[in-house]
Amino acid sequence: MVRTVITLTTDFGYRDPYVACMKGVILSICSEAVLVDITHDISKFDVEEAAYILYRAYSFFPPRTIHVCVVDPGVGTERRPIAVRTKRYIFVGPDNGVLAMAAEDDGIEDVYTIESGTVTLREVSYTFHGRDIFAPAAAWIALGYPLEALGRRVKDMKKIKSDTPQIGGGRLRGKVIYIDSYGNIVTNIRWDLIKGKVSFGDTVKLSYRGGEVYVPILKAYGDAAPGGLLLIPGSGGFIEVSVNMGNASEKLNLRKDDYIDLEVEGRLTARLDG
Amino acid sequence: MVRTVITLTTDFGYRDPYVACMKGVILSICSEAVLVDITHDISKFDVEEAAYILYRAYSFFPPRTIHVCVVDPGVGTERRPIAVRTKRYIFVGPDNGVLAMAAEDDGIEDVYTIESGTVTLREVSYTFHGRDIFAPAAAWIALGYPLEALGRRVKDMKKIKSDTPQIGGGRLRGKVIYIDSYGNIVTNIRWDLIKGKVSFGDTVKLSYRGGEVYVPILKAYGDAAPGGLLLIPGSGGFIEVSVNMGNASEKLNLRKDDYIDLEVEGRLTARLDG
Amino acid sequence: MVRTVITLTTDFGYRDPYVACMKGVILSICSEAVLVDITHDISKFDVEEAAYILYRAYSFFPPRTIHVCVVDPGVGTERRPIAVRTKRYIFVGPDNGVLAMAAEDDGIEDVYTIESGTVTLREVSYTFHGRDIFAPAAAWIALGYPLEALGRRVKDMKKIKSDTPQIGGGRLRGKVIYIDSYGNIVTNIRWDLIKGKVSFGDTVKLSYRGGEVYVPILKAYGDAAPGGLLLIPGSGGFIEVSVNMGNASEKLNLRKDDYIDLEVEGRLTARLDG
Repeated sequence: MVRTVITLTTDFGYRDPYVACMKGVILSICSEAVLVDITHDISKFDVEEAAYILYRAYSFFPPRTIHVCVVDPGVGTERRPIAVRTKRYIFVGPDNGVLAMAAEDDGIEDVYTIESGTVTLREVSYTFHGRDIFAPAAAWIALGYPLEALGRRVKDMKKIKSDTPQIGGGRLRGKVIYIDSYGNIVTNIRWDLIKGKVSFGDTVKLSYRGGEVYVPILKAYGDAAPGGLLLIPGSGGFIEVSVNMGNASEKLNLRKDDYIDLEVEGRLTARLDG
Repeated sequence: MVRTVITLTTDFGYRDPYVACMKGVILSICSEAVLVDITHDISKFDVEEAAYILYRAYSFFPPRTIHVCVVDPGVGTERRPIAVRTKRYIFVGPDNGVLAMAAEDDGIEDVYTIESGTVTLREVSYTFHGRDIFAPAAAWIALGYPLEALGRRVKDMKKIKSDTPQIGGGRLRGKVIYIDSYGNIVTNIRWDLIKGKVSFGDTVKLSYRGGEVYVPILKAYGDAAPGGLLLIPGSGGFIEVSVNMGNASEKLNLRKDDYIDLEVEGRLTARLDG
Repeated sequence: MVRTVITLTTDFGYRDPYVACMKGVILSICSEAVLVDITHDISKFDVEEAAYILYRAYSFFPPRTIHVCVVDPGVGTERRPIAVRTKRYIFVGPDNGVLAMAAEDDGIEDVYTIESGTVTLREVSYTFHGRDIFAPAAAWIALGYPLEALGRRVKDMKKIKSDTPQIGGGRLRGKVIYIDSYGNIVTNIRWDLIKGKVSFGDTVKLSYRGGEVYVPILKAYGDAAPGGLLLIPGSGGFIEVSVNMGNASEKLNLRKDDYIDLEVEGRLTARLDG
């Protein structure tokens, strides 16, 4: 018997009964499912944040894992419930962009609306599609229900526009896409973009709303003094601004969606432009 | 091998080792148990809140699921540990009312005290019956240990008194029974009570400690403008006061146990009375 | 097929994708693993707190459980990743003391560094060994990979110095080692140390930073009046200062690492000294 992994990502929090309702529905249909929480502490209604968290975690799961993501401010309105087949996974959730970042990263193959009464609860509420549509659909898919039978093919799945870093005018401009619980500031600048053009130990001028500061590029948090700022290639492949044993977001008062500029006193720019 | 689902609902929180102790005890006795957290963030000692959360979640689990609920301010005193067989489930916890709302909803068949030394840990503390009595008893029940052998039959299981909505004097008076993490205000007024007597789109006068406000009855959150108040049939069957993309509890400063009055400018009353 | 239990204890929190990454890695290697969270809400970088929580929970799990603990401020620096075989369990984590309290309690048999490329991810980051080393190593161990093949034998595993209670000068001096989410103040004074020398119902003078107060020694929280202070043999074997239906830490403004002194008006001292 295949024990399919089903992951759950929501903004339901850990206090309310909503996540448990979803899990009960899944186990009632597919008793062999292995349930894993990615997180339920997505900021309420924050589709972008959920898309990022799912993107960061999805690829570490076994092939054929079904990733269910329910951050769904439009529940009960005309936005479509969808299931997405990618190269290695299935994604299930509302068509509001929340699945897009991970699904595109893995390679989208097919997208279907979820309409079949076979895979939804008998009564579908207007307020809780996590329980009434997404959970049971994921469980039926785990049992082998074909995506093709879920509903209609979707050609225009909703994507999330994301900024790409800008190079020019002597600067590399990036944006804060996530602040983690340590206060690490995750930017949208991929390490690959500057790797080979900088060395560990180089110092970078970091300009941001509120000031500018010189920061070393280091490999490990512990390579800075305790309390010291550093730039680091984060575990997700993006450049992060961190404080060893401290909270970079609080120290710099930087928040999600803030911009940052990096320059190596003319040198990084030259190297980047070159 | 049957993989029995055992759910856990407690006020232990997620930081302390207590929930893990319970899970370790269960898996040591019944390695095939499938453990699902309903929540561990019940407000400390709040038996009523736990009873409500368990009630909201229990029925979505597979038949024969064992629901363990430990919100137990009287631990170590004379309140009895009990196991309840209902039509489809087993409930395990202290006899302080915490199991009553869900168990009564499903239909109580038998109630037994948990006294057998076979199903409790060798040393039973006075402070942690979740670990020493309820977890191991649930695991033994999952293995097939008969309820009849747990202890004595209980005829006077403790219930929780709950207010029912009042109709009269031109008003429908209800009470706030739960505020969820979105700020949705869950009342004790079942949608069934006014369904058929109001239409979606009707406007209701909502009076409460602190003021009165006119609110439309809508099907989906997104049918209100962002930030707009609405009355909605909640996913648990009760009427909820909500704000689309916002927090109704903060907006109205309404709390658990507050009363609210609904009237449709004389019309609802007439319809309700009629 | 043996379903090995793997527990996870981290300071990653519940909001970020980090715990899910670890779980995905484990399930990708060992699909039969049963994952149990001890907690992910360890105070950031607090190795001592994690060591205590792991110690409190580990022994309730089935023999051969693999306990993974990642509170790892030195990640990416020269501190060693290790696996520890004790009498009944395997512990996996950084060699910074976090595993020591539990492992010593169970009885350490062998300690090995984790270096084998077989059991780590292909690319090992400098910032996330939970995902890249500890999770996959635990999964491989669950599959039967021998500890001896992980790396080199370690003879000098790092321990955490811990204070022991002091008796003398008419006082029993202990230290606060943990404040739980109820506000229970867990001391480092084992109940066994005074058991037999005091009786339930005795009153003790408790002196602490900020004052002194007379407190009864009671068996159960409910033996004190609501809001009343008590000393109680905690479920972990240590003496705890508690408030029935309240928060002792807030009431006394006592924090982790504070000292407390106990005396029974000369009587406890005499008994203890005798």
